[in-house]
Amino acid sequence: MTTVLCVGIATLDYVYAVEGVPRRGEKYRAHDLVVIGGGTAGTAAHAIARLGGKAMLATRLGDDPTGDAIVAELQAAGVDCSLARRYSGLRSPSSAVLVDPEGERLVTCYADVRTPDDASFLPCRLPEGTSAVLADVAWVTGARRLLLAAREFGVPGVIDGDRVVDDKSYFDIASHVAYSAATVRTLTGLDDPAEALEVLARSARNWLCVTDGERGVWFTADGGIDHVPAYHIAALDTLGAGDVFHGALALALGEGVAERGAVSFANAAAALKCLRFGGGRIGAPSRPEVEAFMRKQSTVQRGSPRGRAS
Amino acid sequence: MTTVLCVGIATLDYVYAVEGVPRRGEKYRAHDLVVIGGGTAGTAAHAIARLGGKAMLATRLGDDPTGDAIVAELQAAGVDCSLARRYSGLRSPSSAVLVDPEGERLVTCYADVRTPDDASFLPCRLPEGTSAVLADVAWVTGARRLLLAAREFGVPGVIDGDRVVDDKSYFDIASHVAYSAATVRTLTGLDDPAEALEVLARSARNWLCVTDGERGVWFTADGGIDHVPAYHIAALDTLGAGDVFHGALALALGEGVAERGAVSFANAAAALKCLRFGGGRIGAPSRPEVEAFMRKQSTVQRGSPRGRAS
Repeated sequence: MTTVLCVGIATLDYVYAVEGVPRRGEKYRAHDLVVIGGGTAGTAAHAIARLGGKAMLATRLGDDPTGDAIVAELQAAGVDCSLARRYSGLRSPSSAVLVDPEGERLVTCYADVRTPDDASFLPCRLPEGTSAVLADVAWVTGARRLLLAAREFGVPGVIDGDRVVDDKSYFDIASHVAYSAATVRTLTGLDDPAEALEVLARSARNWLCVTDGERGVWFTADGGIDHVPAYHIAALDTLGAGDVFHGALALALGEGVAERGAVSFANAAAALKCLRFGGGRIGAPSRPEVEAFMRKQSTVQRGSPRGRAS
Repeated sequence: MTTVLCVGIATLDYVYAVEGVPRRGEKYRAHDLVVIGGGTAGTAAHAIARLGGKAMLATRLGDDPTGDAIVAELQAAGVDCSLARRYSGLRSPSSAVLVDPEGERLVTCYADVRTPDDASFLPCRLPEGTSAVLADVAWVTGARRLLLAAREFGVPGVIDGDRVVDDKSYFDIASHVAYSAATVRTLTGLDDPAEALEVLARSARNWLCVTDGERGVWFTADGGIDHVPAYHIAALDTLGAGDVFHGALALALGEGVAERGAVSFANAAAALKCLRFGGGRIGAPSRPEVEAFMRKQSTVQRGSPRGRAS
């Protein structure tokens, strides 16, 4: 079984179902509430476990009931939380998520400012059998330590670059960086993700990609930029889709799949996630589901190419 | 000690401190989080206890940890929760509140749709010594039962009419109705609270008032409309100010204070609440604080009336 060590943030999310995402400071009513684990690294670790990998999570939590709930839910999903450090007196991260029927969402994330930055409790050497490291941008010190360990160990080190960070020097340590469209737009000032990626690739020695939802994924390949389209689906809930994508990408790379294949696999996992309501946890697909979906989609694509008269 | 029986909603609020109230469905960061009791009836009951009254709360909760936290916090503040009914399998009400540095707030309230409407567990006769009933608009059946009991018992029955309800026939049972400016605007189509109140008063037999924040309070008096200005304060956090106002108003009316005096007292309590950050709980003032504030303000007003050259 392929082991991926995820490092970053795990939260407890309060997901409120509302009629429309609020535009003003007023009072709104939610007709449903789901309390569920979230956070970029936590959701990716959960997705990896669902996809049949072995996921470990390095994260920082408080010793509060919120932290208990976060660990209990991840352990129940099979995630190894032995590197989830609990700090006395600290409040665990949580988020309020408002989702409307169209899937638009307003997310407010809270992380305790007193959370220690120190990552010395993390191992310098990767645990035996680790096949990849996946780091988010929530904990630079922890990410740096484990990405260095991944490089020394000779396994892929993947960064989920879903927002711009002040100190991005640790991005150079990673073998693979997956940006969001918003991040490359901010970094380059260019609206077109492919053009923006081309600019970023000029000064990068690692593999880069940029995900742009239903427009697919662009990635660096053979000195140029290549593209994998997104699957055509009726998205019901995109919450956590990026995290599932990054978890699946790191898992496939850890399994030794080449980049294009890893992107396709991650694309399929993220697409399936969007078909179910309930964020990154409820929507995360299993390996057989992803494989069946990919087979079916390739049949559909061969059988009825777009533009062909029927 | 004057006893006020409050009936309506009590919640657990997750109050996120954000840089600005969100305008779009995106990702925002909170730099602080306070988890604290809330809800119109719960906050009013808490305020009454802080003001030296005896507060009882009739409300419907789940048997979940959220409900435990709601009851524990109210009991610690001295609120009698023996009429707080816990339902097995129900989720207790909670809210996500985003507050920015200017005090603007976006509130998303959740209440379980499965909450039983039945109010038969509430007494038909008010508990001995009850001096007033305060009802919100969250639980019409419970409000109707206790407002009828208040009328039979010959004590004030006060409604916090902070939003428009479908079936407002129970408003006629109340001796006193305190509207928000938004509610009278919706009910009459008139922007001016005094004009709107005049229209509403034509078909009402009970005492009516409308609160409009820093513009003060209009109320029915001797067949006309009277006004009490708001105190001039630098509001830091208006969250829960209305609930504190209604709690103080019901307490003062229960103590036998005439309407104008009760409004002034409630005005002062609400103003003091706005001087402290942390919603209706942390901001709720004590009786000595309100009395000292009223004395000081009347000195200030006598000593330096507005418009006088100095």
